Amino acid sequence: MTDSPRIGLIGGTGREGLGVALRLVHAGVPVLLGSRSQDRAEAAAGSLRSRVPAARVEPAENGVVIASSDILVLSVQFAGAEATIAEHRHRFRPGSLLIDLTVPVAFEGGRPRFVELAEGSSAEHIRARLPESVALGVALKTIPAHALAAIDRPLDCDDFICGDTEDARARTLEFVRLIPGLRGVDCGALDAARVLERMTLLAITLNRRYKTQGARFRVVGLP
Amino acid sequence: MTDSPRIGLIGGTGREGLGVALRLVHAGVPVLLGSRSQDRAEAAAGSLRSRVPAARVEPAENGVVIASSDILVLSVQFAGAEATIAEHRHRFRPGSLLIDLTVPVAFEGGRPRFVELAEGSSAEHIRARLPESVALGVALKTIPAHALAAIDRPLDCDDFICGDTEDARARTLEFVRLIPGLRGVDCGALDAARVLERMTLLAITLNRRYKTQGARFRVVGLP
Repeated sequence: MTDSPRIGLIGGTGREGLGVALRLVHAGVPVLLGSRSQDRAEAAAGSLRSRVPAARVEPAENGVVIASSDILVLSVQFAGAEATIAEHRHRFRPGSLLIDLTVPVAFEGGRPRFVELAEGSSAEHIRARLPESVALGVALKTIPAHALAAIDRPLDCDDFICGDTEDARARTLEFVRLIPGLRGVDCGALDAARVLERMTLLAITLNRRYKTQGARFRVVGLP
Repeated sequence: MTDSPRIGLIGGTGREGLGVALRLVHAGVPVLLGSRSQDRAEAAAGSLRSRVPAARVEPAENGVVIASSDILVLSVQFAGAEATIAEHRHRFRPGSLLIDLTVPVAFEGGRPRFVELAEGSSAEHIRARLPESVALGVALKTIPAHALAAIDRPLDCDDFICGDTEDARARTLEFVRLIPGLRGVDCGALDAARVLERMTLLAITLNRRYKTQGARFRVVGLP
């Protein structure tokens, strides 16, 4: 394990973060599970172990997770992302990779709405606030928490990847390969997040219209 | 046939329009095939008949097609859509349905780029310029011309529908059912086009990255 990159979740106690953690520990991948509070991190680790008794999970505060991880999964709510980055900016390891899962969607009177950002997407918004020495990738934005949590069922969908460099994309694709049943699709530069984040809004819309929880996407026609 | 709505294509001689026409005549649906020039409309009708000998196709100028159709498919280039609507605005039948296929993508140095519009999407841009008595639906935006043209192969993907009223969406879904192998997915109000048009950009990006021509989407997890 010493040669494998250490994987940590920032905000691993929300539904999406917990779903990702569940898929990782279910595949035998050790994770650092971060939260703003040590207590909540421990409670979430406990719930992981109750579903996957062999789970290799270590709960910690977000700051500790950030300082200790080579690959970080940012699974906080969009509204809290900027403050989380600002608070821990000095703790990131140079050369580490942040994988952004945030989606700028707000609910107004129960209806989901895309939050337009000057940078065009949440990923680009975060890029502008991240230390230069940290690479940024995008993954899992369109995979619903509900589908992630159903570990007895394969995800049978595609995961759309983009990133700020070719190296960031390659490392993000490698990370996605850790989750069985998920095919990583390389969508190129970081501005592809403008499409991907809106596709999450579409998935939420479809879930509501079709009274389901797991709408997700697959690409037909790739070689 | 007298009870069926008459279906016309505005700009049916481009690759996307011709692909849609091909799928329709292949399914036995009669179409009016429109172009700016009668000659080009006739040449396109000839090419349809060479692939589908039993094709029920009538070539005409766009203005004639618009005046004669209950359902119109707008498959002109985005750059020409506004002028086409303006030129023929008075010819639309009240109560007719326009199905918009346009996508605001421009190529710069060979790279595709999304053209940001004040209205948010090409569909909303067109809505603002269409007579009020004409309903607007969106369909087929993400279906590649290359896949449409391969009539010997099922499309095996989903088609994302939205529209300005529930009735427009219902009629658009009914239209999509005319094309075998295509499942219409109801994405709701017209502003869903903001996602759908960007998904076309993503499909173009994937075609280039994966050196293919037929990238398209399917939704997993719908009931």
